Amino acid sequence: MHGYRARETERLHDQAGTLVDLLHHDTTYPDGTMVLEAGCGVGAQTVTLARRSPEARFTSIDVSADSIAEATRRAGQAGITNVEFRQADIFALPFLDESFDHVFVCFVLEHLSRPDEALATLHRLIRPGGTITVIEGDHGSAYFHPDSPAAHAAIQCQVELQRQAGGNSLIGRQLYPLMVDAGFAAVHVSPRMVYVDWSRPDLVDGFTRKTFTAMVEGVRESALAAGLIEPSVFDAGVEDLHRTTEADGVFAYTFFKGVGEKKPDASVGSGSE
Amino acid sequence: MHGYRARETERLHDQAGTLVDLLHHDTTYPDGTMVLEAGCGVGAQTVTLARRSPEARFTSIDVSADSIAEATRRAGQAGITNVEFRQADIFALPFLDESFDHVFVCFVLEHLSRPDEALATLHRLIRPGGTITVIEGDHGSAYFHPDSPAAHAAIQCQVELQRQAGGNSLIGRQLYPLMVDAGFAAVHVSPRMVYVDWSRPDLVDGFTRKTFTAMVEGVRESALAAGLIEPSVFDAGVEDLHRTTEADGVFAYTFFKGVGEKKPDASVGSGSE
Repeated sequence: MHGYRARETERLHDQAGTLVDLLHHDTTYPDGTMVLEAGCGVGAQTVTLARRSPEARFTSIDVSADSIAEATRRAGQAGITNVEFRQADIFALPFLDESFDHVFVCFVLEHLSRPDEALATLHRLIRPGGTITVIEGDHGSAYFHPDSPAAHAAIQCQVELQRQAGGNSLIGRQLYPLMVDAGFAAVHVSPRMVYVDWSRPDLVDGFTRKTFTAMVEGVRESALAAGLIEPSVFDAGVEDLHRTTEADGVFAYTFFKGVGEKKPDASVGSGSE
Repeated sequence: MHGYRARETERLHDQAGTLVDLLHHDTTYPDGTMVLEAGCGVGAQTVTLARRSPEARFTSIDVSADSIAEATRRAGQAGITNVEFRQADIFALPFLDESFDHVFVCFVLEHLSRPDEALATLHRLIRPGGTITVIEGDHGSAYFHPDSPAAHAAIQCQVELQRQAGGNSLIGRQLYPLMVDAGFAAVHVSPRMVYVDWSRPDLVDGFTRKTFTAMVEGVRESALAAGLIEPSVFDAGVEDLHRTTEADGVFAYTFFKGVGEKKPDASVGSGSE
């Protein structure tokens, strides 16, 4: 009908009707493969992952026993049967080297003070020829219309608090060098931009308002307690973020998804020694 | 081979091997249609446009007679025969209402102090049911690794100079509300991110270094003359932009492409009166 329309782009957009689709639509694992989900938290991604690859076998770990309990409950409620949950520290995993075909890490590295070390640890767990998939956000990728210095200042509070906690909320853009440095080959990073205008009311509400702005609002007390910002500026910033959800507003945020392979011959030497 | 790979994304990326593909791969016009390219400059997009739709008939206008001369020369050199070039002001176009099937505008609105008025003018020139395609960049969408306040300050000089000249280099994110306000229907805006890491040496050189960083470097004298920045900060910023072209560097920039339709019945009333 419209040969000159952005057909491919539109189709991808349609596929990616939700944030889940945008991030995960291209992640499926072959039948019978063993997949480690490192840092599953309360299982927010686990159900999606496991459903998309019903014949793969997942081991989902998290350092928090409470999170594991909640993730187990959620997966059970969703009727998921191909996931084994275990409480474990990503830096001291109770698995043999090369015991997984694939590793999946989502929204985890941003919280770690040593993401490079975590990736190196995970690299050892993957069999030669296996892959790692890493997904992270990047709070420095957020911009919007109308623009607002106060909104940027409020966002910056979250960035600073995460930095003080040892994390890095700008890590999305760094996936490529981090994965290469950890020894992965054929690293391919693809940005996943959530672009929100009034033509997508689902994203206006589900992403701009209830995901991103809510996340910024959530650090108010911590930011004020840490003396990072004046209350009036923070509140104006949050109000300006809400302003972007009006009919003439626009909001953009980008997640980054990286896939890398463990070199097929990476351990031939050590394996035969 | 890898079912879990970002197949679609990769394919789009591969299609979009160059900036030209990224921006224009989904713009083709049906045979016999009349297309106005408003603000063709020296014809940088004209040859691509005309080649992609060899049986459409283009009228490419620019306010600068010198630019039109150069565009004519370029198109002739490329063997293009389906473009008529004319010197004309976008705010005083020598065409009847509804005399074009489609309008194409690329990197033009950013230079205008009245982009809303320009879009309204172009809206009148399109027949009911016809379309407009608008492409603009957004300098506020640039971010990179390693991050650098000096680099952001140098970029901000370009933004400020363009603002002082009456333009808006953050206009990309505003395409949706601008097009809706101008009366277009079914407006669909798709972001086109240029994501550059070391796995894409063509983009490292062709985009980060020779397009974006060169553009910033180009405003050095004007920025210093306007007192916008200390020379040492500007130079450090440019150096930091070059730093992002090293093996562990990453650079991201987003263009926005909007397509809208003139309502099929938009002028039925006035046409029959």
